[in-house]
Amino acid sequence: MNEDILTNQSIVRYEQGKLFNTTDHYVTEFPLTIMVNGEEFATVICSPNHLEELVLGFLASEGVILKNADLKSIQIDDSKGFAHVELTHTLDDRFTYSTKRMIASCCGKSREFYFHNDAAIAKTSMSKVTLSPLQVVNMMTRLQSASTIFKQTGGLHNAAISDGDTFFEHRQDIGRHNALDKLYGFCIQRHIPIRDKALIFSGRISSEILIKAAKIGVGIILSKSAPTTLAITLAEDLNITAIGFIRDGNFNIYSHPERIKAVEATED
Amino acid sequence: MNEDILTNQSIVRYEQGKLFNTTDHYVTEFPLTIMVNGEEFATVICSPNHLEELVLGFLASEGVILKNADLKSIQIDDSKGFAHVELTHTLDDRFTYSTKRMIASCCGKSREFYFHNDAAIAKTSMSKVTLSPLQVVNMMTRLQSASTIFKQTGGLHNAAISDGDTFFEHRQDIGRHNALDKLYGFCIQRHIPIRDKALIFSGRISSEILIKAAKIGVGIILSKSAPTTLAITLAEDLNITAIGFIRDGNFNIYSHPERIKAVEATED
Repeated sequence: MNEDILTNQSIVRYEQGKLFNTTDHYVTEFPLTIMVNGEEFATVICSPNHLEELVLGFLASEGVILKNADLKSIQIDDSKGFAHVELTHTLDDRFTYSTKRMIASCCGKSREFYFHNDAAIAKTSMSKVTLSPLQVVNMMTRLQSASTIFKQTGGLHNAAISDGDTFFEHRQDIGRHNALDKLYGFCIQRHIPIRDKALIFSGRISSEILIKAAKIGVGIILSKSAPTTLAITLAEDLNITAIGFIRDGNFNIYSHPERIKAVEATED
Repeated sequence: MNEDILTNQSIVRYEQGKLFNTTDHYVTEFPLTIMVNGEEFATVICSPNHLEELVLGFLASEGVILKNADLKSIQIDDSKGFAHVELTHTLDDRFTYSTKRMIASCCGKSREFYFHNDAAIAKTSMSKVTLSPLQVVNMMTRLQSASTIFKQTGGLHNAAISDGDTFFEHRQDIGRHNALDKLYGFCIQRHIPIRDKALIFSGRISSEILIKAAKIGVGIILSKSAPTTLAITLAEDLNITAIGFIRDGNFNIYSHPERIKAVEATED
């Protein structure tokens, strides 16, 4: 079961002043499209286990089914990522506007732009910027010292945009995307070029956050947490350097390590 | 500024075997409705600071504006929670279906059921269940020991449903809602009564998670993290006992403390 929800991934690890290739395992993001009475209803991004329970609980909490008897059958085709649901009744009209939307993992709810509009706006990064490992570590340290309210209450997401040097702007929000949108708005207002900057983020790099970074136009995103496997794939495709687990002066590079300048460990 | 994004709240604290009244501060959830060219476009749940940046960054990352010159004006009315945006162009047809949706804080994206359908499905809890403080602490300990993959990768949400005694079912997912939907589906499949159970959740209790708990039908939700202020208000309204910061044998009760049986500290 754990094999389903975790995937092995090749990464570049920075540890004790050296970069080297290794592998680690990461959380799988699995798109499951739910068909209700033969019509596409929604696509949920999830961890691929207990899928029948997930579909049942999702439809019940949306009010599509009110009791077990409303359900004629559920068939899960996990090789193709489909759940085929037959109800004993026709789908209420108020649900028809839900059709064909992508539902994000972070809230289990709709993001209808997810694949249509996002795909148009999220551009492949052309950033030529490079950073030293020390700059990577220092930007995360700086985000953490700026995040006093987060420490107090444990309820806010923190994000910053920086050139790795003197420019460093920090925002907080209860919404992951909102913190990034505030930084994006700040740069637009002040005509600050974004391509040569890095985003530093307190939370996990999900596929959504990665797409947001691509829309904003940065070439590098840093996190102290783990990315998901789908985020790593997207980062690879969109030419974004994704770095995570920035802890105790070490970190992992998941994609495009060429933007991080290798530093040899000094001899003792 | 910090006063905007934090709110003081009366709570019941359980510490060293005693329950007592105190206050603490919690993250504010603020609904901001974005009007574009006089039409309702979307409502974002956010932390109420840097709102003009937020609106600008949000519209840019949705592709509504492509450059600063697309924007005629932004006026923020933060007393009423409105942002009035005038564009230099008319809104593209592909955005018209976004109208009048609620956008959740956790992903900054749409949840169109948020207030309409949710309000119909999320019922006031009629649960008569009570728990002892020790049961509260033990359920969180049990969730944490079940969460081995979370510890390994830092990328999964954990949730469990329990009667505080022998019944304890645990699920993991990259999506917060998905983990709860899996538990809900499990109970529906097996005709397990939910009203007398508690949900135990690894993450923050946001308004969305609280609404999900109400839809599922539990009377108690436990978290090791902080709730938001809107979640506390909803918990109060929906007759749900919300408990957070369950750490080192202590915890905070944010609403309906009557379900937690007071225990006097033993005399030394």
